[in-house]
Amino acid sequence: MLKATFRALSDSTRREILSILREGPKTAGEIAAHFPTTFATISHHLAVLRDCGLISDEKQGKYILYELNTSVLEEIAVWLSSFKKDSKKDETL
Amino acid sequence: MLKATFRALSDSTRREILSILREGPKTAGEIAAHFPTTFATISHHLAVLRDCGLISDEKQGKYILYELNTSVLEEIAVWLSSFKKDSKKDETL
Repeated sequence: MLKATFRALSDSTRREILSILREGPKTAGEIAAHFPTTFATISHHLAVLRDCGLISDEKQGKYILYELNTSVLEEIAVWLSSFKKDSKKDETL
Repeated sequence: MLKATFRALSDSTRREILSILREGPKTAGEIAAHFPTTFATISHHLAVLRDCGLISDEKQGKYILYELNTSVLEEIAVWLSSFKKDSKKDETL
């Protein structure tokens, strides 16, 4: 749903988390290490990102790995492409 | 600023207003005619869209015309393009 996605993306910490995950899957601890805020705060942001499908989590042994899910970003790219001046609609991530 | 832009885009009425303006500049009355809500509500949405630069307004005689400003949408497209799997960064609106 675009509403929840855009709302999730309005937060700069959450956008930064997505940038960090471009490098590949990471644990909550690895992600939290990039920020001066508490682990609980990052954990909340991860839940928001997961709830709107921007990231997914997968249990690997005793760790949970968070991974970027580009299909939701692609949905936004498709919406944006409808505003292109030449109305090309074939852009994907 | 991406924060205000994403927050503005999280509202479906505001996204619909942008879609309407793809056809060309319109007055607040012409835009409001597409919605069952009050003129005051649409006027508020137009102010939010204008404040984050997604639309601009121009006085023409006794009317104010609202126009789509694609440069802010382009800023989002550039941000999104950094998540492309092949990291191509040359996408613009």
